[in-house]
Amino acid sequence: MPEVEIGIGKSARLAYGLDDVAIVPSRRTRDPEDVDLSWEIDAFRFDLPIVASPMDGVVSPATAVKLGELGAVGVLNLEGVWARYEDPEPLLGEIASLPADRVGARLRQIYAEPVKSELIRDRIREIRRSGVVAAGSVSPHRVEELVETVTRAELDLLVIQGSVVSAEHVTKGNPEPLNLKTFVRRLDVPVLVGGCSSYQAALHLMRTGAAGILVGVGAGRSSSTRRVLGVGTPLATAIADARAARMRHLDETGAYVHLIADGGFRTGGDIAKAIVCGADAVMVGSALAAAHEAPGRGSHGGMAAAHAELPRGARIDVGSRASLERILYGPADDDSGELNLAGALRRAMALCGHASLKELQKAEVVVLPSQDGRR
Amino acid sequence: MPEVEIGIGKSARLAYGLDDVAIVPSRRTRDPEDVDLSWEIDAFRFDLPIVASPMDGVVSPATAVKLGELGAVGVLNLEGVWARYEDPEPLLGEIASLPADRVGARLRQIYAEPVKSELIRDRIREIRRSGVVAAGSVSPHRVEELVETVTRAELDLLVIQGSVVSAEHVTKGNPEPLNLKTFVRRLDVPVLVGGCSSYQAALHLMRTGAAGILVGVGAGRSSSTRRVLGVGTPLATAIADARAARMRHLDETGAYVHLIADGGFRTGGDIAKAIVCGADAVMVGSALAAAHEAPGRGSHGGMAAAHAELPRGARIDVGSRASLERILYGPADDDSGELNLAGALRRAMALCGHASLKELQKAEVVVLPSQDGRR
Amino acid sequence: MPEVEIGIGKSARLAYGLDDVAIVPSRRTRDPEDVDLSWEIDAFRFDLPIVASPMDGVVSPATAVKLGELGAVGVLNLEGVWARYEDPEPLLGEIASLPADRVGARLRQIYAEPVKSELIRDRIREIRRSGVVAAGSVSPHRVEELVETVTRAELDLLVIQGSVVSAEHVTKGNPEPLNLKTFVRRLDVPVLVGGCSSYQAALHLMRTGAAGILVGVGAGRSSSTRRVLGVGTPLATAIADARAARMRHLDETGAYVHLIADGGFRTGGDIAKAIVCGADAVMVGSALAAAHEAPGRGSHGGMAAAHAELPRGARIDVGSRASLERILYGPADDDSGELNLAGALRRAMALCGHASLKELQKAEVVVLPSQDGRR
Amino acid sequence: MPEVEIGIGKSARLAYGLDDVAIVPSRRTRDPEDVDLSWEIDAFRFDLPIVASPMDGVVSPATAVKLGELGAVGVLNLEGVWARYEDPEPLLGEIASLPADRVGARLRQIYAEPVKSELIRDRIREIRRSGVVAAGSVSPHRVEELVETVTRAELDLLVIQGSVVSAEHVTKGNPEPLNLKTFVRRLDVPVLVGGCSSYQAALHLMRTGAAGILVGVGAGRSSSTRRVLGVGTPLATAIADARAARMRHLDETGAYVHLIADGGFRTGGDIAKAIVCGADAVMVGSALAAAHEAPGRGSHGGMAAAHAELPRGARIDVGSRASLERILYGPADDDSGELNLAGALRRAMALCGHASLKELQKAEVVVLPSQDGRR
Repeated sequence: MPEVEIGIGKSARLAYGLDDVAIVPSRRTRDPEDVDLSWEIDAFRFDLPIVASPMDGVVSPATAVKLGELGAVGVLNLEGVWARYEDPEPLLGEIASLPADRVGARLRQIYAEPVKSELIRDRIREIRRSGVVAAGSVSPHRVEELVETVTRAELDLLVIQGSVVSAEHVTKGNPEPLNLKTFVRRLDVPVLVGGCSSYQAALHLMRTGAAGILVGVGAGRSSSTRRVLGVGTPLATAIADARAARMRHLDETGAYVHLIADGGFRTGGDIAKAIVCGADAVMVGSALAAAHEAPGRGSHGGMAAAHAELPRGARIDVGSRASLERILYGPADDDSGELNLAGALRRAMALCGHASLKELQKAEVVVLPSQDGRR
Repeated sequence: MPEVEIGIGKSARLAYGLDDVAIVPSRRTRDPEDVDLSWEIDAFRFDLPIVASPMDGVVSPATAVKLGELGAVGVLNLEGVWARYEDPEPLLGEIASLPADRVGARLRQIYAEPVKSELIRDRIREIRRSGVVAAGSVSPHRVEELVETVTRAELDLLVIQGSVVSAEHVTKGNPEPLNLKTFVRRLDVPVLVGGCSSYQAALHLMRTGAAGILVGVGAGRSSSTRRVLGVGTPLATAIADARAARMRHLDETGAYVHLIADGGFRTGGDIAKAIVCGADAVMVGSALAAAHEAPGRGSHGGMAAAHAELPRGARIDVGSRASLERILYGPADDDSGELNLAGALRRAMALCGHASLKELQKAEVVVLPSQDGRR
Repeated sequence: MPEVEIGIGKSARLAYGLDDVAIVPSRRTRDPEDVDLSWEIDAFRFDLPIVASPMDGVVSPATAVKLGELGAVGVLNLEGVWARYEDPEPLLGEIASLPADRVGARLRQIYAEPVKSELIRDRIREIRRSGVVAAGSVSPHRVEELVETVTRAELDLLVIQGSVVSAEHVTKGNPEPLNLKTFVRRLDVPVLVGGCSSYQAALHLMRTGAAGILVGVGAGRSSSTRRVLGVGTPLATAIADARAARMRHLDETGAYVHLIADGGFRTGGDIAKAIVCGADAVMVGSALAAAHEAPGRGSHGGMAAAHAELPRGARIDVGSRASLERILYGPADDDSGELNLAGALRRAMALCGHASLKELQKAEVVVLPSQDGRR
Repeated sequence: MPEVEIGIGKSARLAYGLDDVAIVPSRRTRDPEDVDLSWEIDAFRFDLPIVASPMDGVVSPATAVKLGELGAVGVLNLEGVWARYEDPEPLLGEIASLPADRVGARLRQIYAEPVKSELIRDRIREIRRSGVVAAGSVSPHRVEELVETVTRAELDLLVIQGSVVSAEHVTKGNPEPLNLKTFVRRLDVPVLVGGCSSYQAALHLMRTGAAGILVGVGAGRSSSTRRVLGVGTPLATAIADARAARMRHLDETGAYVHLIADGGFRTGGDIAKAIVCGADAVMVGSALAAAHEAPGRGSHGGMAAAHAELPRGARIDVGSRASLERILYGPADDDSGELNLAGALRRAMALCGHASLKELQKAEVVVLPSQDGRR
């Protein structure tokens, strides 16, 4: 591990973000049509390595179905507006149209409404009925309370997500904290858990028996964790470290734990770079919030923006650009890279000679030392 | 120490600023309520590791009291307007409302009024009467003249502060220069002295018998020392070097000298990063000048901006954002990180698994090699 | 090769762009008049190491002739508008005047018209008739279909160009993919082929028997390959790696393969830096699109901007600055560096003491670690 | 020398600019009054290490006198307007008021007027009569023609300056090129010669017998050599390399050759940093062009901007800020650092504990790896 001494006796590793790296073409090229973008986790197979972020502006029951039909998977926030209100559509419309300085206060009111088990159950069933994989997220401190509801509703994939989630949460209070190490193994449903951003943290989350872990702390576009808290490892390094933990865990247990990189993906190129660093799939928020079908109507932020005492995120206006299908599969009509994510990933793999995501994970990257070096 | 050769035979160390680093979560997390933010220096214990900067726009006797009640400590500038005028409020109002190009000249007039011992005495007593720790600052070249006044007034904590303060000031003139090595030991009051920004300078300041040293040269938001003079070490490296000096001094003498990092703190994340680098507390200026109670009424600058021949600082308009209490303890209503400094520090520590400031000092940091790597 | 570990067990090389480097003067200087800018490839000798990019906005049959007369060489895009329309001038005028958001769709319509063998033949003959070297480009997937036409028309120099071209294109489909290793050797016409951006890719392209290879992936000003696909090596490193491949190939075969650097050249200084890195000549697009004679009338983009599903480039408005002669030979009337490319290259060589391009290839460069270091 | 491989087998040194470094305070401080800013070259002693650049907008005979009286030295351009016109004042006024796009052409007309020996003679005498050191510059290719005139007029200090000047100019033409190695030794007048920017180039210039060399290629604010030609080493590295050459030359010959750093100095801090890197004095252009007395009337550019075929510089509007005396000695009324250059240098030295320029040359610097690290 390359380290520098930031002062006498205090060392620090150099950590890189996705914008610091670029993929090097190999000596082969391929036809884009020959490239396979699929991945599998537990019993599920997906055509695209794209997981839609459990944010109220991104995933509704309807978009979860649509995303599933398109080969991706949408994770419904099981503590969000769909779990609190019978019909949250008017509220989502209201948030999107509020002036920026009044959003925070209104969000706090909206999220004051209690979560309701029946609504969670109904939302999960609505997604399942359509035949796609039903995935939903809960926060670590409510997962014990809600787990019975979600398993009864036959959720397919459970996401336990917080800014930072560790396998060893320490508390002086009562009740006992959630012990992920025993909790995850007790469940029948495969679990994705995170975020995390170090080798040790990733390794211990893997040891809980999770099927996948979310890698990335504070890297999303709508997040300001890095600025407000000073906490977070840039994503390229976080993913590569988690990949090393995955190799050790695989060696120790024979179990391959999937890495879902989470944070600020805009283009297919961003996704390709995350996979080269070691990710199996990526969690996408803002880029999908720009879909015509997105419940946020062109804006989104999520619950961190509604934190009562220390918001770490804001409503971001992403506009309403194109259908979900076009964001994923094109055609694009400009060169922003924000449309046709799958096509760009496919073409990047073809140009670099990689036929599958597992091959792409072994591709070579370069680090670009300066802004101008990008030319 | 990592060095580069900037030219044949001329080496230089690499030096890092707080914006160059980020904190890595450990494999544990904690409950925010279990985190302890307190620190102690000499006989005093503070709930928060925040020392308000001795600038006329930040600390008045009234805000010193308020800050003390809130668990922080405000240092009154004992050569500032409160030591020169019976009622400086109209002057502070005038400065805040002057056009930028006329501030410098007016400040020079205002600071031409002599410092008055009776006023210093009265201000200190006013703060003491309220029951909080009374802290005041003087510059190195006036400390001998004012020391009797301040000790008689029973000041609790004396800050001796200049752009750069060394334990070995050399002069050809008369009278003899202040010899901090003998001077500090003669005093009954605990002393904080600085700024400094190297291992050797810090070590020698520690050897004067100071209770704490101020670390940082020209790093504040209202300072332009780096541009005008070319002098200064970025703060992460300066703190880490001073931490190494503290360890050596502790080993040699058994005395733990506190490090107060000084320079441009905006968010709780900035504070957390300074503590990870080795600081015990931080000196905050601009961020507190934005308090409703701040004497500067939304603008501040301090005496360096009034230097007659070479101003190194300017009036900065920071606005009037929130009460002191809300700046320190929230709630925040946006994600700027500028409100709820204590809450952000507490949460950063909880997410990273650290229960006390001493634990946080041992946390891991990463260096982010480029702007874009911050994503 | 200097490597960093971006995460545990995942290494990456540092890669530099042309803006990251600067040329160091040697201990000698020369007269600009004594500097020789010529280079040779196959049987052809050119006064200037400048190859105009096969883009419809840059090279028409008329500008190819003009460029040849001026000592450079213009490569006509044999799948562009000149190969599809008897008179494309009105279309070029229309594109230049369309609002930006309608260019993409219109380009797709325009390029839907089939390529016509007779037109290709006539364009090549028109250029040959004038006595200059006739160079034309085709894409890898159409080269087999068009090769008979272009050889019959006695093209002098064939450019086979794509975003990334490899010597080992893999396909599952029918028909068999183009095998450059056998194809290039079968041709009588010397071939330039690329782009490529690694040692291995360059080496294998050299082994096809090509006279020259194009080095650079996604580095041009009108390209967005890096953003959209995440793929590409910065140019200084790409050229230097290809130079190492050239040395090995020369050692193995005795054949010197020329390197044509491709990507974003603006000034004679950019060209000089590419040659110091190892290039024999450079391919210039945008800088020549600004010629009064340029067919794009001050705007250009090329066919990547017209890709139906994933455009990777946009129309760039470069203005109409000066005649081709003045862009190449001056006089310049400002210090932008965009006029008098040959004069600047000549003067850079003179100041640094190099009499020929081969000497310049051995010059010393420095890497500038930061933006500000550029001062 | 720290090197990186920019590509396989192609190495490059890292080179730093003045903005990349900052001075580290030592463990001592001093009184500003005790600091000595003087330096000596040949028989001359100057109060300030500031040499005004031989540009028509900066130095006239009158400002040369004024600068000398203030302790600095002004170098008159002996091929500039004062050597071509009896009364150039109206021309300087005209240039200052022309619109930017017409300056180049008009400058070319103005400099078409021949240089006149009598004018050179009269200007030198006018400066000498006032009792200050008379310094004047000529370009390498005219120095032989003009040398008799300038020595007869008893010039005190001859500056031979070009973009890059080497001790080994190679030419195929007639007449024989200037051989600095024999030429400089033949002269009675001490010579400053440059620019140069490498160890070898500096060493060979020192071996000509020059009293001082100018270090820096294309670093000035009004220069665009780096952009247009791609040539130049950043100043901190160029100075430090030349300092190593000075040490070797001193060891070999016993002669101490002075280094005059040239390029873009704005503040006393910039000057202090150049001296820490090894300079004995600095050449200042733009910063002095802003004097009320400056002949350029708030704008300047020099002859490179008037180059007929490849201008490498432009007229820069620097405004008319203050008297020469105030630029050099203050008082400053803002914190831009552009006024009171001597005061800032003096104070930087005092804060860092250095009593003389020779002591300052040994000070410690740090390298700031990133933009943000500057905080």
